[in-house]
Amino acid sequence: LLGSYEDRLAPGCSQVQLGFRYESRDQRFTIYVMQLSNCSALCLPADQKMYLRVAVLPCMEATRCLFRTRGSLPQDLVEFNEVFGMQISHSALRQKTLRVDVCNNSKSGHEECVAGAQISLADVSCSEDRCTKWYNLLSRAYMPDIKSKDKE
Amino acid sequence: LLGSYEDRLAPGCSQVQLGFRYESRDQRFTIYVMQLSNCSALCLPADQKMYLRVAVLPCMEATRCLFRTRGSLPQDLVEFNEVFGMQISHSALRQKTLRVDVCNNSKSGHEECVAGAQISLADVSCSEDRCTKWYNLLSRAYMPDIKSKDKE
Repeated sequence: LLGSYEDRLAPGCSQVQLGFRYESRDQRFTIYVMQLSNCSALCLPADQKMYLRVAVLPCMEATRCLFRTRGSLPQDLVEFNEVFGMQISHSALRQKTLRVDVCNNSKSGHEECVAGAQISLADVSCSEDRCTKWYNLLSRAYMPDIKSKDKE
Repeated sequence: LLGSYEDRLAPGCSQVQLGFRYESRDQRFTIYVMQLSNCSALCLPADQKMYLRVAVLPCMEATRCLFRTRGSLPQDLVEFNEVFGMQISHSALRQKTLRVDVCNNSKSGHEECVAGAQISLADVSCSEDRCTKWYNLLSRAYMPDIKSKDKE
């Protein structure tokens, strides 16, 4: 009962598929940005390219921690299949948080990010296997929602 | 080598311990807000109470989705052990994202959130067992960092 009611209301969220691997021998963390599903839920302009911005935060000055995929027009399923890597010790990595945001460039040239996922790397394991998962994207438009509720 | 250098620079992040359980029989999602560690990394004023704000987003109008723990002075380890519950179908829950933010009230009475974790609920399982984990908290101060790097 509850299911059918909520299912009708929920428009279905957009998701991003990511993979991770940490190789302890080389102290190398690899991020696989695979695909983005249900783009229409993000209400992006159809004629404008979007891309994923990937950041390992907090960022150390000495290391590159910010990456962007190539741009792509929004479609139901967008395949990226891009790989980003950084050198970092396992103990430092486990204190990091990964942010993945869906962004585009506004007409004024500013980067605008409409939705994102945030993933704690506290339990990234030292394994040669790539661990792949789909993550829900949360629209940035929902964040002010919390604030308006505070005033009630 | 890399390890010792980065370890010295990293001040150690604050973490929150959360538990989840979804009971399919009652269509009930339960969030266990357990404890907060390494509070000093958040640089909160020592004489002001802080609390955790928990939101299951996007929020349906009909359901309560925003919760707050009681306030507590910042200490190295703050135990909350509070439990919040909501009724929701499993398919709707799997489209949600949980935000947990460390907040306090400014002198002007506004809620200010200094750091948070964001957890995709895409893979919440239907199990009677409580699944407990520590999540890194990302300071909101790091978000503008990305923007300043864009201009380079």
